[in-house]
Amino acid sequence: MEELKLTSLSGKNKTVVETGPLRIGAGFTVIAGPCSVESEIQLLTIARAVKEAGADALRGGAFKPRTSPYSFQGLGLKGLKILEKAKRETGLPIVTEVLDPRDVSWVSEFVDILQVGARNMQNFSLLKEVGKGYRPVLLKRGMHSTLEEWLNSAEYILSAGNPNVILCERGIRTFEVYTRNTLDLSAVPAIRELTHLPIIVDPTHGTGRVSLIESMSLAATAAGADGLIVEVHHNPKEALSDKAQALLPEAFNRMVRKVRTVRACLESLS
Amino acid sequence: MEELKLTSLSGKNKTVVETGPLRIGAGFTVIAGPCSVESEIQLLTIARAVKEAGADALRGGAFKPRTSPYSFQGLGLKGLKILEKAKRETGLPIVTEVLDPRDVSWVSEFVDILQVGARNMQNFSLLKEVGKGYRPVLLKRGMHSTLEEWLNSAEYILSAGNPNVILCERGIRTFEVYTRNTLDLSAVPAIRELTHLPIIVDPTHGTGRVSLIESMSLAATAAGADGLIVEVHHNPKEALSDKAQALLPEAFNRMVRKVRTVRACLESLS
Amino acid sequence: MEELKLTSLSGKNKTVVETGPLRIGAGFTVIAGPCSVESEIQLLTIARAVKEAGADALRGGAFKPRTSPYSFQGLGLKGLKILEKAKRETGLPIVTEVLDPRDVSWVSEFVDILQVGARNMQNFSLLKEVGKGYRPVLLKRGMHSTLEEWLNSAEYILSAGNPNVILCERGIRTFEVYTRNTLDLSAVPAIRELTHLPIIVDPTHGTGRVSLIESMSLAATAAGADGLIVEVHHNPKEALSDKAQALLPEAFNRMVRKVRTVRACLESLS
Amino acid sequence: MEELKLTSLSGKNKTVVETGPLRIGAGFTVIAGPCSVESEIQLLTIARAVKEAGADALRGGAFKPRTSPYSFQGLGLKGLKILEKAKRETGLPIVTEVLDPRDVSWVSEFVDILQVGARNMQNFSLLKEVGKGYRPVLLKRGMHSTLEEWLNSAEYILSAGNPNVILCERGIRTFEVYTRNTLDLSAVPAIRELTHLPIIVDPTHGTGRVSLIESMSLAATAAGADGLIVEVHHNPKEALSDKAQALLPEAFNRMVRKVRTVRACLESLS
Repeated sequence: MEELKLTSLSGKNKTVVETGPLRIGAGFTVIAGPCSVESEIQLLTIARAVKEAGADALRGGAFKPRTSPYSFQGLGLKGLKILEKAKRETGLPIVTEVLDPRDVSWVSEFVDILQVGARNMQNFSLLKEVGKGYRPVLLKRGMHSTLEEWLNSAEYILSAGNPNVILCERGIRTFEVYTRNTLDLSAVPAIRELTHLPIIVDPTHGTGRVSLIESMSLAATAAGADGLIVEVHHNPKEALSDKAQALLPEAFNRMVRKVRTVRACLESLS
Repeated sequence: MEELKLTSLSGKNKTVVETGPLRIGAGFTVIAGPCSVESEIQLLTIARAVKEAGADALRGGAFKPRTSPYSFQGLGLKGLKILEKAKRETGLPIVTEVLDPRDVSWVSEFVDILQVGARNMQNFSLLKEVGKGYRPVLLKRGMHSTLEEWLNSAEYILSAGNPNVILCERGIRTFEVYTRNTLDLSAVPAIRELTHLPIIVDPTHGTGRVSLIESMSLAATAAGADGLIVEVHHNPKEALSDKAQALLPEAFNRMVRKVRTVRACLESLS
Repeated sequence: MEELKLTSLSGKNKTVVETGPLRIGAGFTVIAGPCSVESEIQLLTIARAVKEAGADALRGGAFKPRTSPYSFQGLGLKGLKILEKAKRETGLPIVTEVLDPRDVSWVSEFVDILQVGARNMQNFSLLKEVGKGYRPVLLKRGMHSTLEEWLNSAEYILSAGNPNVILCERGIRTFEVYTRNTLDLSAVPAIRELTHLPIIVDPTHGTGRVSLIESMSLAATAAGADGLIVEVHHNPKEALSDKAQALLPEAFNRMVRKVRTVRACLESLS
Repeated sequence: MEELKLTSLSGKNKTVVETGPLRIGAGFTVIAGPCSVESEIQLLTIARAVKEAGADALRGGAFKPRTSPYSFQGLGLKGLKILEKAKRETGLPIVTEVLDPRDVSWVSEFVDILQVGARNMQNFSLLKEVGKGYRPVLLKRGMHSTLEEWLNSAEYILSAGNPNVILCERGIRTFEVYTRNTLDLSAVPAIRELTHLPIIVDPTHGTGRVSLIESMSLAATAAGADGLIVEVHHNPKEALSDKAQALLPEAFNRMVRKVRTVRACLESLS
């Protein structure tokens, strides 16, 4: 990992990514929302619910990287406008995925944090483009990526000029079939010893099963993560994507309370 | 998972494996000790240290499954006698691995719990033999095994007559090279919803890196594990096996305190 | 791979494993037969068919390593007697799997080659026992095993005194679900440059799909394998194990002809 | 695999991708050249050598997807001009990788086939863009991708209007470390039974070891591939990327002869 000039820890201070009220890397940040923005009423309903449950930021996809070209591809600009409206109403900063380098600049005008998804972790054109941008970047780990490759992808962003990268572990692909992916929580302390960048965990894609999300959120917190990103939907069965893995607002609410209690307990220990 | 007649949850009460003072599955059980029994002085030194740090049982290998035939293969009977002595002195119940069906019966006279290691998870002769025995069995997950296969291996033991099986997640093999294995903590809540058997976690083999063990122990606890099994050595550099991954007694002591605090915090939540 | 004293190539001559008319490692050896011995009539029917198609040896399991304790576990001694009878009638040497160190000695009296299966590749008690025996050993690669671990398992057998080891690539476990395993044919030339032991390929377990077996047999041959081991059944739908992957005798016959043609073509090239 | 309307086989005729003198999917196509275009003299030297050895097309990267931002990123436009010159001199059609949707249109004016690399197999913006283009697309399998995902990525291209897709198996990521990837040759017959698109194999990235390439090329041919894409360099040690895996022209020459002989042998069989 010799070439990680900007990303490696080597004596640097821990990075705190600041945007609006958020300070990711200081304290514990919970990002929540639906997989996709489907409609104004859907997003606002969920935004209010997660705000009330104590979320710090709102996620929602306007551009969806779908395996099949015939699956719902997201609302695009219309989705971004809905996200903007939800921010106006709830005050929650917005996280949304960007798929195409041509979209980076104009999407940045609508949202607070740009997500680079697992499938694009080595889309180097996209990395360079978000690296030239001014918005913080949530960089998900590729489902097949080593820690070293992941940090090299962060280095692409940092070396292009953008210091605000948040890493996100979201599960790797293994032979196990009970879970959608295998959430690699050892990545949390490992990343801690390798880099100064904050790391959050996505238990939703990491497991693909609603019933496992609370436990894995607690585990991620105890492993030392700087936060979570979780899918929440008020009506998962009708969701246009990722039906099987979104928490109901009530379950999310309960989970946030537990997670914050465990986090406080851990802070009292060290 | 239709054929898991005895192992599946389906309305059964959670199993509590009792042996001597241990009640695995009720409360939180910490098993600790060296990878291998190397000498009387080594084992007794470590046994006293882990006892003092709050361990509930002592682990130590007398038969070692080593990749190379030229690596240290364990002290065998001599090792068992040392384990017996450590039990006499500290009162800690003993966990040791058994590799060969021919050893099950006589090794059972020396120890309290028989471990079936990851490499033997589908050694069906061994499973049948420990299933006919009277000692509780700690069944590690194979490094390539699905949850379904693992539970089928437990079913071999239960269907042979022995109801006392403790499952142990110890990491699966993936492409990641920073860690020795990828500890699959989602197995903890997944196993919870599939079976009534208790499940503990081995963060030592699961990561292969001393620096990650405390974090992963806390994470395993928060994920809902019934306990931990951890390698501890007072002089890891001189250890005859697994040099790079044993905790020093002081680090183990600190970890146990933190783990018990997090466990108490979680119990207060539910 | 420093510790592979006996297994490493390092200037040694290629091993030819001889038993009866077989010379594995010189020429191209085809081993075929059912997954399990089910009855005398089943085995004899298949034995005659594979003999006619040009097989060099007969495989058939009398002890079956099954994931579930409730699956057919093999006919045991009765199966061995049927194998012995098939040998008497067809002259084909017999390959059968052995699962338990206690069975090595007496099973050796019935068969010509002992197979150590993928799940037992690191069953070190079994490796030592077949290493002390006088029968050649067909050592399958574990589904999670690196080449280095595999060769270390061979070293267990060689260092116990038995020089007659045949390696068998049978597919490793990956994320792919279309095939049962991923057949790693690069293992063939890799093993060639690492060791003097012969290597054969099992396309049946390697793919788990009848429709892929001929192609993969041809590929294995072109990769330089010393032979193949293939499941054949005259009535796959009624088979007691591995229904979905056994070739019909006609298909096997056609495959053998093609494989031998490709092999001859390759020999003319070098 | 229900949604593969255009990509699935279901009674369609096999696709032959035609461009200039090439007819990929009819006969056997060998594509060769350096990993990266480094200079005019380097590329021309290699182009002449592979032409003489019987290659049908020339590969060479002008845009390189490198793990680290500090590694050689390719010569860009200058590289394309050199490729164009090599085509003029040798008559070989040109295959080059494109990384960014913004490059698709202008790069198409310089080359004959656009490659979408493994890391971009699910870069859906890029897939849509090459799907709108007029150049055939060589679509590599992602190192973590199932066959179903791969064919869905092809469906993105076909559904955008471009019917000329060539699939390329290049190895998947597993736990094995001796090889850089695990070349999944069962993908060749599997893809055959799932789709009408041609499939070629990349033994260079599939193994990452010069010593294994000839064997795996022969195996790919025997498995039924429609061709090969191989890295060749006249001075591998000085190469700016992938030093350890490029064949020397002489070795490539020998390999092509053998491969064509095996191919002819196979054609005589069916």
